[in-house]
Amino acid sequence: MAIEGRSDAKQGGRIRLGMVGGGQGAFIGAVHRLAARMDDQYEFVAGALSSSPERSRASGAELGLAPDRIYTDYREMAKAEANRKDGIEAVAIVTPNNIHVPAAKAFIEAGIHVICDKPLALSLKEAKSLETLLKKKNVVFALTHNYSGYPMIRQAREMVAKGELGQIRLVQAEYPQDWLTEDIEKSGQKQAAWRTDPKQSGGGAIGDIGTHAYQLACFVSGLTLDELAADMTSFVKGRKVDDNVNVMLRFKNGARGMLWASQVAPGNENGLRLRVYGTKGGLDWTQADPNYLWFTPFGQEKRLITRGGAGSGATAGRVTRVPPGHPEGYLEGFANIYTEAARAIIARRAGKKPDKDVNFPGIEDGVAGMAFIEGCKKSSARNGKWTKV
Amino acid sequence: MAIEGRSDAKQGGRIRLGMVGGGQGAFIGAVHRLAARMDDQYEFVAGALSSSPERSRASGAELGLAPDRIYTDYREMAKAEANRKDGIEAVAIVTPNNIHVPAAKAFIEAGIHVICDKPLALSLKEAKSLETLLKKKNVVFALTHNYSGYPMIRQAREMVAKGELGQIRLVQAEYPQDWLTEDIEKSGQKQAAWRTDPKQSGGGAIGDIGTHAYQLACFVSGLTLDELAADMTSFVKGRKVDDNVNVMLRFKNGARGMLWASQVAPGNENGLRLRVYGTKGGLDWTQADPNYLWFTPFGQEKRLITRGGAGSGATAGRVTRVPPGHPEGYLEGFANIYTEAARAIIARRAGKKPDKDVNFPGIEDGVAGMAFIEGCKKSSARNGKWTKV
Amino acid sequence: MAIEGRSDAKQGGRIRLGMVGGGQGAFIGAVHRLAARMDDQYEFVAGALSSSPERSRASGAELGLAPDRIYTDYREMAKAEANRKDGIEAVAIVTPNNIHVPAAKAFIEAGIHVICDKPLALSLKEAKSLETLLKKKNVVFALTHNYSGYPMIRQAREMVAKGELGQIRLVQAEYPQDWLTEDIEKSGQKQAAWRTDPKQSGGGAIGDIGTHAYQLACFVSGLTLDELAADMTSFVKGRKVDDNVNVMLRFKNGARGMLWASQVAPGNENGLRLRVYGTKGGLDWTQADPNYLWFTPFGQEKRLITRGGAGSGATAGRVTRVPPGHPEGYLEGFANIYTEAARAIIARRAGKKPDKDVNFPGIEDGVAGMAFIEGCKKSSARNGKWTKV
Amino acid sequence: MAIEGRSDAKQGGRIRLGMVGGGQGAFIGAVHRLAARMDDQYEFVAGALSSSPERSRASGAELGLAPDRIYTDYREMAKAEANRKDGIEAVAIVTPNNIHVPAAKAFIEAGIHVICDKPLALSLKEAKSLETLLKKKNVVFALTHNYSGYPMIRQAREMVAKGELGQIRLVQAEYPQDWLTEDIEKSGQKQAAWRTDPKQSGGGAIGDIGTHAYQLACFVSGLTLDELAADMTSFVKGRKVDDNVNVMLRFKNGARGMLWASQVAPGNENGLRLRVYGTKGGLDWTQADPNYLWFTPFGQEKRLITRGGAGSGATAGRVTRVPPGHPEGYLEGFANIYTEAARAIIARRAGKKPDKDVNFPGIEDGVAGMAFIEGCKKSSARNGKWTKV
Repeated sequence: MAIEGRSDAKQGGRIRLGMVGGGQGAFIGAVHRLAARMDDQYEFVAGALSSSPERSRASGAELGLAPDRIYTDYREMAKAEANRKDGIEAVAIVTPNNIHVPAAKAFIEAGIHVICDKPLALSLKEAKSLETLLKKKNVVFALTHNYSGYPMIRQAREMVAKGELGQIRLVQAEYPQDWLTEDIEKSGQKQAAWRTDPKQSGGGAIGDIGTHAYQLACFVSGLTLDELAADMTSFVKGRKVDDNVNVMLRFKNGARGMLWASQVAPGNENGLRLRVYGTKGGLDWTQADPNYLWFTPFGQEKRLITRGGAGSGATAGRVTRVPPGHPEGYLEGFANIYTEAARAIIARRAGKKPDKDVNFPGIEDGVAGMAFIEGCKKSSARNGKWTKV
Repeated sequence: MAIEGRSDAKQGGRIRLGMVGGGQGAFIGAVHRLAARMDDQYEFVAGALSSSPERSRASGAELGLAPDRIYTDYREMAKAEANRKDGIEAVAIVTPNNIHVPAAKAFIEAGIHVICDKPLALSLKEAKSLETLLKKKNVVFALTHNYSGYPMIRQAREMVAKGELGQIRLVQAEYPQDWLTEDIEKSGQKQAAWRTDPKQSGGGAIGDIGTHAYQLACFVSGLTLDELAADMTSFVKGRKVDDNVNVMLRFKNGARGMLWASQVAPGNENGLRLRVYGTKGGLDWTQADPNYLWFTPFGQEKRLITRGGAGSGATAGRVTRVPPGHPEGYLEGFANIYTEAARAIIARRAGKKPDKDVNFPGIEDGVAGMAFIEGCKKSSARNGKWTKV
Repeated sequence: MAIEGRSDAKQGGRIRLGMVGGGQGAFIGAVHRLAARMDDQYEFVAGALSSSPERSRASGAELGLAPDRIYTDYREMAKAEANRKDGIEAVAIVTPNNIHVPAAKAFIEAGIHVICDKPLALSLKEAKSLETLLKKKNVVFALTHNYSGYPMIRQAREMVAKGELGQIRLVQAEYPQDWLTEDIEKSGQKQAAWRTDPKQSGGGAIGDIGTHAYQLACFVSGLTLDELAADMTSFVKGRKVDDNVNVMLRFKNGARGMLWASQVAPGNENGLRLRVYGTKGGLDWTQADPNYLWFTPFGQEKRLITRGGAGSGATAGRVTRVPPGHPEGYLEGFANIYTEAARAIIARRAGKKPDKDVNFPGIEDGVAGMAFIEGCKKSSARNGKWTKV
Repeated sequence: MAIEGRSDAKQGGRIRLGMVGGGQGAFIGAVHRLAARMDDQYEFVAGALSSSPERSRASGAELGLAPDRIYTDYREMAKAEANRKDGIEAVAIVTPNNIHVPAAKAFIEAGIHVICDKPLALSLKEAKSLETLLKKKNVVFALTHNYSGYPMIRQAREMVAKGELGQIRLVQAEYPQDWLTEDIEKSGQKQAAWRTDPKQSGGGAIGDIGTHAYQLACFVSGLTLDELAADMTSFVKGRKVDDNVNVMLRFKNGARGMLWASQVAPGNENGLRLRVYGTKGGLDWTQADPNYLWFTPFGQEKRLITRGGAGSGATAGRVTRVPPGHPEGYLEGFANIYTEAARAIIARRAGKKPDKDVNFPGIEDGVAGMAFIEGCKKSSARNGKWTKV
């Protein structure tokens, strides 16, 4: 277990962190704050937690922010914090999707590192404009594709990279949920409301969970998608975005795959699962039981690799906190993204490159995710025609 | 448990059964014989177990057949048995696929009931020619889509039919295997050899296991397929048939689905799984653990329905032999097809219709399966174009 | 898969089998008949299926017995069958426990092989009297501790015997059920009625399921029990036998263990589970999923050995019918006892010893089981004092 | 999800926390710090992290403590902190067991709240002396029986308390591990070394994990133990403490149970499992998959209650951070103990009683645990004689 040397060690003090979005009633803001806190690498000191001044103030007070560091506008916040001596070094952007890029740009321009929720943008074009800006600015940009922070996912990626599966032939990714089986967006459920409003979300299941499955598939398999054929559906009457997405995948190395994302599959809470098969073996992982990784070397017994247990290597070990058999979960995986980003930020403080093992999703993942979303939309609009991404 | 009143009760003596194919070294012939024997409804008395006279004789002797009822040619057998007073009433056809229809026709013409392995034929046209013949002849025709014999599959079908899932929106079917990950057909493995020879099998994974997944999906969901988009692949170098099939499905009621059949997915033995989701609930079943059916009424806890246990109804009960917690398996499910067919045959003896609860796959399933195979081939050849079936 | 060469091969015709008990309404009689039929080694030709003449006749007719071979008294049956040229060679005794030994003796005296249900007797003394008789008579005696017929249990036994677990330290056995949680014996449920009547059963959970767990623990571990400390309870008001048994075990090699048998544990159908741990590894098996055997070599990943799959050896292979991933169940395991006994009977026909690999529970298991029951009763009566068996 | 209103809300600033033990190389100290940090209720400001001045200094520096608040002696620390205006309000004691009580007393005497690791003491007498002191002092005392912090364990407790299981009859608790299968204490493994040294630990498996299983069994079932019969073993040659403990339990209401704790069971990482059965239903929970609680109302289907999902109530909800399907783990459960203790401490600040829902293990659990350990030792020494606790 590497918890001591890693998570508690502070080089030069905690990173001063701000947040955009995440006021009272939000779900993901609290998750980000907790993830930031887990390994004691960040100190939360400023926020534009809501565009409503009243809610922003109340939320900030509840979270212990100093009154002069509670903002209602992220532009104002970026400017003010950049001018403070003790201003934030990094900002977490946890708003609906339509604010991601504008907010990120404001902070990047101010030289502040960004940790941004996903999907990155409303369009591929918008994503690319951010990419262009980032090339000019020396800031760290992390995208919270949090599932790639799970230790057993890192283990899987390492095994594929080392060739333990041989040449990859098949990638099966799925992320079924059931919470949008009925039209709860009409009843005022806040999470459902913005996620099913195309102006705020840019899309439905495809962006909210499909991009997670896609990012994970690429992260673990190491493959690059060539083309896809998609069938997007909106099952719930009156819903303005897709709530089920079926996709067939063709990767550049000739591998094939399927991806399923659904929000209308009763009995599935957050059923993210990834299976990868090659000429020499197969892997199977599911988010609900993230401490297990099933590995079958072809022709041998299936093996259960456990986080921190036998068969689990150094790559998983460095993002592991507790011994095998003591489960880690969603928050720990999420925190790994924060802590990896912290390592990069701390290296920047010293003008250094981060350690080569540091690994967190960034702008490329964001751009790739938007290309995937647009590819799916385009293919689906053309009745499932194979579409290059 | 209904084992007594059902399986042991013989009305008018056991059904005299013959077999075509299934000589020494075959796998599925032995399964058919065991399935026929399980509920004591059949007596195995004649066979053309191999086209090699020597192997046919040796196999028949080993199985206790009378020498004069061991044949090498199914046509000869059909004729000879039809002329005996104690001739067979039914025949099991367990040859490679290319012999299914010719053999079936020979026995049907002779007025002998047929229990035939799947897939039915080499082509849809051939399948339909059999269908035409059957319309003229008063014989029972059963196709051993054995997975539809599992009690929990019948339970699932009944729950869907009763509306417990509401309107069906999604059907996810998969059947991954790994036994053809390498080119064992070249090493003389008999099962692999004929299954990868298009002249004998008519296709690869699509026919061998894809049709099983498809039949099961339709059997449980009660839906009719409208169109499909398929991506068939042959991963193993030199292989002449598909070994991986990805399919997207659109059903006539608007439901969507995905189907995956693979023989190159290491770690999967016979990973048949079916998930069905509707507006009111979801079902999940997997062949490796066939005594369990997961049911989630939307908004409630997931429930584990067990074969013979609470929540398991009469439809499953009539194909159940032992109490809950005592697992039944593949052979019991297979035997249910035989026993259901026996009920139809026994009814015919008496000139009656079988009881309305009798349920086994027949010629329609065979024709539908061939239409599915041809649809997949056509779609795949047209680069995944949506294709009506 | 060895199904062909094994199960269908008949040397000298099927074994003529009779049955005592197992008339209409009985559960286990039908299981025995099905198990006998599975591999086509037996032909069921005679029975004293009930002590009620009417029920015996009706049951026999339904099962296709010739009228002159339907008996109401097992003594009469033993005599009559012994005098027939085509008389039975073996008899299955499937009565309540109090009839086991008297019936077995009648047939053994007549030179007829016996396959008897468990527990063997009402007392250790009665069991030993049968053992004494068997020493004088050249008949085969099989006791249907059917769980020892499961292929993965044989695999486990072989692995222990080969030293793959090192020296055995711990044996944890449990068999929880829930069907007697309420006093259904008072409502006329037939199975519950005789099983909770000490005159017919000799005891409750201890005999009905405790002996199964105990036999399995010894069969797999290869250990001999030295002493035990038991705490037997009857939770349901008015129940005359134990319905929960907690036992601590000390084996002769110094290993320790626990055994739990319960019929009042809601949520458990037939939750038989066995875990064995040694200096070099551990095994875990559960009856509800009998095709899996978990094996952890100490310090390595847990492995899933599947019936017929990689890691599964010849010992399991010879009692296996279908390929891995196609589940076998309770009836197949039960049938393995019948088929193994058939091999011994067939060897006797030829005046030979059975093949050394033939393995089925016999009189020693029956005597050991009764010693275990009496040890538990004695210890429990002495408030859990450690008691030698 | 109640994460916002609960975890981030700080009333009167974070609680100033110190630590005794937990320097570099320790495992549990880091876990405590992380648990304290998770909901942002504590600020870690002082420590006597090691009795070695050098190690204490290095550890404190790494963790960001001010130099004047790094101590090497807990007595000195208690005194110094009590005299500071900004001194610690609470201390976490994470030393080997022999230091627990002396250290706790030093801080309690100084009026500082204590969060102490388990088992509480080296003897029941020592534990009771602490209990006596606590009665006189107005400080909060929490014992980190962390497993009782898991939301699904709280759910289980609530269901039992509400009578959903009826009258409890059976409690089966087990905690198998495998890490002491070999004598790693001789190789200098630090965790193993002090845990197998009776002077530092007071016992082996019984204290380290047996008390966890026992506390959990009582916490959920609501029962009080009457007497026990134990069989303690030390399997590894030269080991000075028990490494396997078999116990039979009798509760005051007549319920029975078994408890197994082992450190020599290969294949078990931290296999804590609890099953509780009553007249109306049964519950099953396992630590490796802590977000699931299996509930079977007698005569109905088994149900899977998930943390935050349908069927999961308010008691679990208030210690839940993320939505169902996003797993929480060991650290979240551990943190719940810290956060519940924080609520009690914050209430004390205001001179109030904590909210009635606040629930964390305290001195009674510690005394009960020591009574259990001593009962087991006494019973085992008397060859398993039933012993009152």
